Amino acid sequence: MSKIVAKTAPMGWNSWDCYGASVNEETVRKNADFMAKHLKRYGWEYIVVDIQWYEPTADSHEYHPFAPLCMDEYSRVIPAENRFPSSAGGKGFAPLAEYVHSLGLKFGIHIMRGIPREAVAKNLKIKGTDRTAREIARFSSICNWNPDMYGVDPAKEGAKAYYDSIFELYASWGVDYVKCDDICRELPREEEELKLLSRALKDCGRDMVLSLSPGPALPEKAELYKETADLWRITDDFWDKWELLYEMFSRAERWCIHTGAGNWPDADMLPVGPILQDYNPANRTKFTEDEQLTMLTLWCIFRSPLMIGGEMTGFDDFTMRLLTNEKILAMHKNARHSHPVWRREIDGTEYILWTAVCAEGGQYLALFNAGEKAGELSVSLCDLELCGAFSMEELWSGETLTGTDSFSVSLPPHGAKAFLLHTVS
Amino acid sequence: MSKIVAKTAPMGWNSWDCYGASVNEETVRKNADFMAKHLKRYGWEYIVVDIQWYEPTADSHEYHPFAPLCMDEYSRVIPAENRFPSSAGGKGFAPLAEYVHSLGLKFGIHIMRGIPREAVAKNLKIKGTDRTAREIARFSSICNWNPDMYGVDPAKEGAKAYYDSIFELYASWGVDYVKCDDICRELPREEEELKLLSRALKDCGRDMVLSLSPGPALPEKAELYKETADLWRITDDFWDKWELLYEMFSRAERWCIHTGAGNWPDADMLPVGPILQDYNPANRTKFTEDEQLTMLTLWCIFRSPLMIGGEMTGFDDFTMRLLTNEKILAMHKNARHSHPVWRREIDGTEYILWTAVCAEGGQYLALFNAGEKAGELSVSLCDLELCGAFSMEELWSGETLTGTDSFSVSLPPHGAKAFLLHTVS
Amino acid sequence: MSKIVAKTAPMGWNSWDCYGASVNEETVRKNADFMAKHLKRYGWEYIVVDIQWYEPTADSHEYHPFAPLCMDEYSRVIPAENRFPSSAGGKGFAPLAEYVHSLGLKFGIHIMRGIPREAVAKNLKIKGTDRTAREIARFSSICNWNPDMYGVDPAKEGAKAYYDSIFELYASWGVDYVKCDDICRELPREEEELKLLSRALKDCGRDMVLSLSPGPALPEKAELYKETADLWRITDDFWDKWELLYEMFSRAERWCIHTGAGNWPDADMLPVGPILQDYNPANRTKFTEDEQLTMLTLWCIFRSPLMIGGEMTGFDDFTMRLLTNEKILAMHKNARHSHPVWRREIDGTEYILWTAVCAEGGQYLALFNAGEKAGELSVSLCDLELCGAFSMEELWSGETLTGTDSFSVSLPPHGAKAFLLHTVS
Amino acid sequence: MSKIVAKTAPMGWNSWDCYGASVNEETVRKNADFMAKHLKRYGWEYIVVDIQWYEPTADSHEYHPFAPLCMDEYSRVIPAENRFPSSAGGKGFAPLAEYVHSLGLKFGIHIMRGIPREAVAKNLKIKGTDRTAREIARFSSICNWNPDMYGVDPAKEGAKAYYDSIFELYASWGVDYVKCDDICRELPREEEELKLLSRALKDCGRDMVLSLSPGPALPEKAELYKETADLWRITDDFWDKWELLYEMFSRAERWCIHTGAGNWPDADMLPVGPILQDYNPANRTKFTEDEQLTMLTLWCIFRSPLMIGGEMTGFDDFTMRLLTNEKILAMHKNARHSHPVWRREIDGTEYILWTAVCAEGGQYLALFNAGEKAGELSVSLCDLELCGAFSMEELWSGETLTGTDSFSVSLPPHGAKAFLLHTVS
Repeated sequence: MSKIVAKTAPMGWNSWDCYGASVNEETVRKNADFMAKHLKRYGWEYIVVDIQWYEPTADSHEYHPFAPLCMDEYSRVIPAENRFPSSAGGKGFAPLAEYVHSLGLKFGIHIMRGIPREAVAKNLKIKGTDRTAREIARFSSICNWNPDMYGVDPAKEGAKAYYDSIFELYASWGVDYVKCDDICRELPREEEELKLLSRALKDCGRDMVLSLSPGPALPEKAELYKETADLWRITDDFWDKWELLYEMFSRAERWCIHTGAGNWPDADMLPVGPILQDYNPANRTKFTEDEQLTMLTLWCIFRSPLMIGGEMTGFDDFTMRLLTNEKILAMHKNARHSHPVWRREIDGTEYILWTAVCAEGGQYLALFNAGEKAGELSVSLCDLELCGAFSMEELWSGETLTGTDSFSVSLPPHGAKAFLLHTVS
Repeated sequence: MSKIVAKTAPMGWNSWDCYGASVNEETVRKNADFMAKHLKRYGWEYIVVDIQWYEPTADSHEYHPFAPLCMDEYSRVIPAENRFPSSAGGKGFAPLAEYVHSLGLKFGIHIMRGIPREAVAKNLKIKGTDRTAREIARFSSICNWNPDMYGVDPAKEGAKAYYDSIFELYASWGVDYVKCDDICRELPREEEELKLLSRALKDCGRDMVLSLSPGPALPEKAELYKETADLWRITDDFWDKWELLYEMFSRAERWCIHTGAGNWPDADMLPVGPILQDYNPANRTKFTEDEQLTMLTLWCIFRSPLMIGGEMTGFDDFTMRLLTNEKILAMHKNARHSHPVWRREIDGTEYILWTAVCAEGGQYLALFNAGEKAGELSVSLCDLELCGAFSMEELWSGETLTGTDSFSVSLPPHGAKAFLLHTVS
Repeated sequence: MSKIVAKTAPMGWNSWDCYGASVNEETVRKNADFMAKHLKRYGWEYIVVDIQWYEPTADSHEYHPFAPLCMDEYSRVIPAENRFPSSAGGKGFAPLAEYVHSLGLKFGIHIMRGIPREAVAKNLKIKGTDRTAREIARFSSICNWNPDMYGVDPAKEGAKAYYDSIFELYASWGVDYVKCDDICRELPREEEELKLLSRALKDCGRDMVLSLSPGPALPEKAELYKETADLWRITDDFWDKWELLYEMFSRAERWCIHTGAGNWPDADMLPVGPILQDYNPANRTKFTEDEQLTMLTLWCIFRSPLMIGGEMTGFDDFTMRLLTNEKILAMHKNARHSHPVWRREIDGTEYILWTAVCAEGGQYLALFNAGEKAGELSVSLCDLELCGAFSMEELWSGETLTGTDSFSVSLPPHGAKAFLLHTVS
Repeated sequence: MSKIVAKTAPMGWNSWDCYGASVNEETVRKNADFMAKHLKRYGWEYIVVDIQWYEPTADSHEYHPFAPLCMDEYSRVIPAENRFPSSAGGKGFAPLAEYVHSLGLKFGIHIMRGIPREAVAKNLKIKGTDRTAREIARFSSICNWNPDMYGVDPAKEGAKAYYDSIFELYASWGVDYVKCDDICRELPREEEELKLLSRALKDCGRDMVLSLSPGPALPEKAELYKETADLWRITDDFWDKWELLYEMFSRAERWCIHTGAGNWPDADMLPVGPILQDYNPANRTKFTEDEQLTMLTLWCIFRSPLMIGGEMTGFDDFTMRLLTNEKILAMHKNARHSHPVWRREIDGTEYILWTAVCAEGGQYLALFNAGEKAGELSVSLCDLELCGAFSMEELWSGETLTGTDSFSVSLPPHGAKAFLLHTVS
């Protein structure tokens, strides 16, 4: 029913994995420049400023309970000028968004559900109404990991005005993408607040993608997410640990039938290149190259949003190849009706097969080795109801193959291959 | 890996819905005759004799605890001669199977997991081993709704011999289809027994479909069912009540990604025509015609096995049309990657949209009205990532339609429509 | 190990049931006067000011989220002068406590666990430390039914100083009894905060009873309550409904072995006389007279604290007799090892028998009719291991009785009788 | 209401801990002789033959599924003559019971709930009715650890006759004590069968103690056990492991208010002296002497039934002293209103204090060290509401002590002391 804003699963960069709560204008511009120059042509386009951009003293991934926030007179958080100098003079994120737009990219921000605790303490006004912050706040609706906000009571007069006012502000800045936090797994308690917020965003006059966090989203609420949002996280924060990557096969299995056409269950950011990794700044992603290939292959056949987590200016050649493989990224665009076919244990190693129809003809197959040792296996096309002669290409290597009924594939531990197959009649 | 026996979801007739535990040879032959004459040409082919065919006194749907069973010297149940006269002289079901085969149809039987309680009481032999019934029975593994069997302990010597011996017997009779009961939702307690039984069936030298009951099967055990069986029930016994039909949308949603290529999650028999309906023999199915269209549409786009439950010789015209619509049955054959697209409440009525790729080109859409009043709604093809010009045919009515981006459809309460859509480039 | 402050279960009056959050000095003095004149001689002695005495705008039982609170410079709430005029000039509750003491009574107050939200918003000081309110508050530890406080993080420097400072203040006022709320059923999350608070109270230099709310307390934490507190609520708020009174038999059964010697599982206030009853001020308690006798009998043989909930100046004769029966109140003092003996259904009516040893000789029996019709039953003393000749007195009526082995008793619906029995040798 | 058969908690010997399923007449007589000569004078009186006495091939603790059982024509199990020679000629246990009676002792047997599987297979008669075994058996009510019986359906005609007939038989043998198994923790499924069985036993014309197994009994069904039985197990099988002994403090705490006057929550047999201990026949109890003192002290102050598990003829001096301390056994008789007072951790060691009133004057105290190291602690009598001067005797050692308000006690790890205290006025 609703207009589809995110026709394909968004691709971009998010500041959290490398900068935690302390992202600033310089790092955002630097990464935007890099994306425009090196990645834009492959479809990467969003630059998203994650949490705490309104907190002047933020300096790491840790939150500062009760720290003062930058707000306007209407209870709305605004960028901290010491961290985002271009916002000075009440300009907010407009100058930074304009810069990102000038590069041919899109601009996104993170917000927390609710109204600032400090606006309630000071009982600030709400734009477009004579109600005040205290009158719409719910004192017991408070995020359990971030101290800054109270939830808003949708039943209160003034609640709609508040949410309308913040999206009006973001639209005036030129925001293209809003990652709203503390709103995804709290359902159904905050369901009505989500509906109010979603409605306000859709009515604000500017197309903005709405992304819900944190995960895991609730499968029984799938239709609600589809109705209210473009993206929703299907997992808690994803980091560079094999266990988390392995779990994603089950999460993707649960959500694959809800993917497509403006609805993008989100497997979270890609911890590639230089990242904080449990906030140890010395290192790069702990994923092996094979694990990163597995990650990209799964994210792309499942059509998860692709949000780069690492500091892009520090990317090495492998990371660049990983993120710019045109055939893999075509699968991210063209896959339809993706789903797992089987999970099988062969000689003590678990293998996983996914498939998807290619919108441009042919059928995608992705094969994963979830075990600890290399292995070779024979894949029967009859398991896919595709018995007969075929030709196919492995997308990472470009190797091609023809055969009948089945083919063999060898896979390193934690490794993956992706194929585009055509039947030959 | 395994050979695929049921390349498409089986279609047939099962005696339970109309005869309970008291099915006999005459009724089987009568229905086989009818199927051969009127339904075979549409793909209907299995004739399945359900539970208690080895119990001479069975006379209704109620079980008779501790009633004597017909068995051979090797602890194997055999048909009760008073109910299946052609089995006299130790011929078992061979004559009846031969008759069914002579009509161009296939023959199936129901079995209970385990070994007869009475074989254990008498400590009968097990073919091919010097072990006895007592030595392989598990005294505490007993079906809680049927009194006849003990489970078999897979760890005991003789257990494999027993299961080998029963499938050897069924193969010698010419059985094509085995519905094994008390084995589907009892997992994981009986998981090893299922594996043993499945292996014995596959090794018996004759292709037989293995169908598991009762449901609901356990979603977390999907790969086990796929490995061991051709069909498994995703629901408890299904009868002609709207609540049960409505629930099937959720059940099918949960199982759709596991459907295809010899794996057929089973929505249970079709209670159409004259059935016992809670064992009141006076009446016919309580489903309205629209509900029956909804049932067939869902079963076919989901590719559930189709097993007729009613007494076929009493079918009226509507029932015949319901079961012989060639385009709907083509969808049952050609649907691929079926899944729901959305469930939406519009004006207080819930609508449900499913889709599937057609293996012969085009895309299936099935639209359901799950509410209590008629309604008309607009369907956006963009929700299916199919924006643009299209032509399509409604499969029940044969009506055709062309358009761009969206179309309107009106649906009676509890009603359904099914479309085959082609995009026009 | 600890000094026992409440040697017997406290008896007194609490403002909640009749005044909600809006209690004021006048009503407190009026009830203290009444108690001193009419009830003190029977052992009633505590006058307890319940919640929100620091909130100037409180005017009913409803809380006012984000209303300003009266505080001193050290983050401590102080009485609202408009409601407690004698507190003017920084005197706090000292004048009111002095008045209550002058009547020969004791003075108690209600507090909420934690530190005022407003003290955190203003980042007030904490007495005796250079830490501030913000530094010890836990932003996500917030009572879900009252908006005023944040929990205090016991691990933070300054936390102990805060709790020390509030009990120092209460001691300086002359407080004898502290009912601490939002701390009883939240265990184990707030267990460490309870220990810190309890230690601070015990070390403050003045004997104060510590009563924990709200219930139901957690049976598996019995030893913790015994270690830290004098009273703890075994039920959610108790009101004048039979269902709640009936449930108390089970609650008392669960807690009876933990009663005695400074540990008083608390069945909550007595809703007698004029009370708000679901905040409808027009009426008096909905309990029948028999139900009130049942309540007093159970509370006294179980030795629950006895806290009057009604406005005492409006008591009628029945209520006065109910609360001044010297033999019943002697049971409240002298019962030891109380416990239920049996619950039995006789002719469709449930009867319940409790017993306790009398510290001054003899044995108490309390017999309850939990059913809807009057009944007579024979009680076997052998069920109490007291076979033989006996004499006994019914405590409400003063009737006496002698016999051997058993006796008969008749009871109205929801009614009770209590006996002191002596065996005759 | 019911007549109280077990006026005090039974004391005796049971064959299970030392002989498993293979007890025979010789071992029973040998232990009866020993008890009569050495233990009878201290109150020990029951000799109980545990499970499988009707199974001719039983030879260890393991059950033999589907082994033939000795039965009479009326579906009733009878002693296996090869194991109980005196039962030959249809005499059953009458000669053995007579022998035990001749020693001044009482005779008990173990039974399984239900009717023999083999009686159902053979469809034997039921005495006093024309119904047969098959007609009353419930095929799905089968003990999950013993293969011999089907439950009896209380709703079936013939069910009462069956239970009447077995107790008639046991009464004719002279049985004094029936330990009924597979009936205690299976509630509420088998609740009606328990009521039927209990009624049949009470109506059989001979006083018999009814003991229910296995545990743990369900606390929420306490009143049912009190109504139907004399004893019920509050634990699964108890063996000589400290963890099991330690848990018994919690189990006893849960059940203490239900103890007394013919109702004896049962902490299970005492694994003392030579026992099988996980069925390793080489060894004696693994409990240390202190642990055995702890066990006896807890069992006696709680008034659990006392059933010796070891082979008595192999007792050493310590075991004899353990079981013949007259003051400890007096506590087992005279304790009233037993309950724990506190559990406290002092210097990392948990101590537990229980108390009980002594029916002959004074108060019992039992103090336990549940930790791994020796310790000394001061016990405040004020915690028992017994402040003041006192004199007391330690019951195991006979040491006496006087003092005021408190006393010190030292305890070895896993050790216990028991006191009888008198206040001095």
